[in-house]
Amino acid sequence: MKRREFLKVSGLGAAAAAASASPVRACATTLRGTGDLAIIIERATGSILIADTTAREIVRRVEGLGDLSHASAVYSRDARYAYIFGRDGGLTKLDILEGAIVKRIMQAGNAIGGAISDDGQLVAVSNYKPGGIRVFDASTLEPVADIPATYGADKRSKTVGLVDAPGRRFIYTLYDAGEIWIADFSGNGEPRIARHKGIGELPYDALITGDGRHYIAGLFGEDGLTHIDLWQDKAEPRRILSGYGRGEKKLPVYKMPHLEGWALGGGRFLLPAVGRHELLVVDAASFEEVGRIPVHGQPIFAVARPDGRYAWVNFAHPRNDTIQVVDIPSLTVVHEFKPGPAALHMEFAPRGHEVWLSVRDANEVHVYDTHSYEKRAVLPAQKPSGIFMTARAHRIGL
Amino acid sequence: MKRREFLKVSGLGAAAAAASASPVRACATTLRGTGDLAIIIERATGSILIADTTAREIVRRVEGLGDLSHASAVYSRDARYAYIFGRDGGLTKLDILEGAIVKRIMQAGNAIGGAISDDGQLVAVSNYKPGGIRVFDASTLEPVADIPATYGADKRSKTVGLVDAPGRRFIYTLYDAGEIWIADFSGNGEPRIARHKGIGELPYDALITGDGRHYIAGLFGEDGLTHIDLWQDKAEPRRILSGYGRGEKKLPVYKMPHLEGWALGGGRFLLPAVGRHELLVVDAASFEEVGRIPVHGQPIFAVARPDGRYAWVNFAHPRNDTIQVVDIPSLTVVHEFKPGPAALHMEFAPRGHEVWLSVRDANEVHVYDTHSYEKRAVLPAQKPSGIFMTARAHRIGL
Repeated sequence: MKRREFLKVSGLGAAAAAASASPVRACATTLRGTGDLAIIIERATGSILIADTTAREIVRRVEGLGDLSHASAVYSRDARYAYIFGRDGGLTKLDILEGAIVKRIMQAGNAIGGAISDDGQLVAVSNYKPGGIRVFDASTLEPVADIPATYGADKRSKTVGLVDAPGRRFIYTLYDAGEIWIADFSGNGEPRIARHKGIGELPYDALITGDGRHYIAGLFGEDGLTHIDLWQDKAEPRRILSGYGRGEKKLPVYKMPHLEGWALGGGRFLLPAVGRHELLVVDAASFEEVGRIPVHGQPIFAVARPDGRYAWVNFAHPRNDTIQVVDIPSLTVVHEFKPGPAALHMEFAPRGHEVWLSVRDANEVHVYDTHSYEKRAVLPAQKPSGIFMTARAHRIGL
Repeated sequence: MKRREFLKVSGLGAAAAAASASPVRACATTLRGTGDLAIIIERATGSILIADTTAREIVRRVEGLGDLSHASAVYSRDARYAYIFGRDGGLTKLDILEGAIVKRIMQAGNAIGGAISDDGQLVAVSNYKPGGIRVFDASTLEPVADIPATYGADKRSKTVGLVDAPGRRFIYTLYDAGEIWIADFSGNGEPRIARHKGIGELPYDALITGDGRHYIAGLFGEDGLTHIDLWQDKAEPRRILSGYGRGEKKLPVYKMPHLEGWALGGGRFLLPAVGRHELLVVDAASFEEVGRIPVHGQPIFAVARPDGRYAWVNFAHPRNDTIQVVDIPSLTVVHEFKPGPAALHMEFAPRGHEVWLSVRDANEVHVYDTHSYEKRAVLPAQKPSGIFMTARAHRIGL
């Protein structure tokens, strides 16, 4: 009931609401905590839905965010502002309480994701064109640093796999150059950049573990991945999982699996094997393969429920209407269902009781109970893709 | 600047602020995200400070919460409401945006802590008198269940170590009975209770790991602890760390070490050894002791920075003016400082860049940079104890 009042009033914007009717009521209904909000990317229309994950309702739609295919988002530490990274180089600061764009800049010609520093002060964006990263003040979006990804004789590389690490650091990978760079903003002056060369062919994406310790880049040009242990005094990249199967029998790769979708539970990672109908099981201490799990199709995301007990897995076209749930201790598929066409993005509630799922080609977002698998809600959305809950504000590397 | 405006206006309460001056301004200044707020328990005066951890400022004080010695708190999933568990059986629902008590009930004569279910709907309190737990609706504080901790012929046990676990479960320990109970509220009717008997003598506290998998109770009457792996189909308690040293040479125990202060990093737990000037190092997979770290005094809390790289340790009287920082990979003390008398509670910012520290007998809360160890702020507080940041809303078992 109270939520519905908020929904109604918030549609007017806070200023308008305050000017109309009773100002006390306008304030009381607009005031709310931000811990249970989420945004949903509507990729085709350049719009964002703001959702209340407790009421399981869409609160409002915000338009005018440009090209949002492959868009992602991070949050300010007060969980009021989302920073949305568009494919077209757009960087938008969105006030999710007011439902309004605070500022929007075109910071590059072509971009892929970003990160926010652990203290919430710096927002970094990973750019394809011009290749490199750009760093902005999180409150004003004024430029702080521009770090071209130069290599060879005057060449610039696309950058991918940009994440935050503890101590005001950003880590990212140079796709064309085969390098990993660590930009350290902990000092007062220019950032210190550490370059790791020769990390492998065509690193297409990367992830950092939730403790900010392990940075792992996937290689498209080789049968393996590259790992850096950031806790080592002299962090050196090393190849892991070499020959894990990509070269064995090349299946057509319909969609690049996302490394941020590695599931960690009970001391093991489950990760999508590129081009194969399998998950790899990797020991989280040694980074050695300890098993494989046959699955329904080419996995895209394998996401652990926050307690690490189960991983939920989705698949590439033409098998993208299906979700499988893997029991991590026994490494077996224990549940399978078909939410609908192009079920491509999942986001768990922070303590894991529910999962939100974009069913793109049904123009729906579904909410499921993760214990009973019961469908709790179906919400309308226009070609929804990524879902980002505000609890990400408090996680390393998200 | 903006924060100071909020501070000024918030002192009036939202309604009063809206009625005075421009309503638009009142709304704009009161509206804020709740992701970076915290509460600080002022134990001696029955009051709570609400703090802004980004501005490093006290926003306001709320009084009238009764006996807050050993008080603790949990948060609603929107991070707007704190539920504060007083020693006197008081349960207070506090609106941290408005800075006002929403409801306060005396639910028992004597209590020790509580928990909130993973879906945010149930708040449970652990009671000494009458022994048992009581469960309330999180929105109204209306009673939902009363579960007496009965044992033997009509006896009731004190309950301790109450935590939430995934799937609307609460787990807790019966101090007098030596039992662990699991109350499962996932169905629609009465909760299902699983009782584990004979878990050991005088279990005085317990913890659950951040993944909700391992529940561990400390034993005051024996030289060991009890462990339950909740992922097992038939979860059975087993004794771990038997003979870890308490019996070897009984030092006087000045203060009970808190088990929720176990530090987890790099696959190892560091935990305070009861009555000894040592931390135990325990393998997180086998629960076997793999080492000891000599420290400055009898440790009370060993808390891992959220990335698990370091543990910060504080000590019992008469050595409670000191903090030591342990490097977890090398198991060595790498930093020591004396913030002041009775430095008894620490709370890390969710991504670990800063730590908040109550220095009780100096009537101060300090904020430190966790990388440079620089002191960033000193805030006045009356006999501060526990500090609880809103990011706890999104963690299992906190």
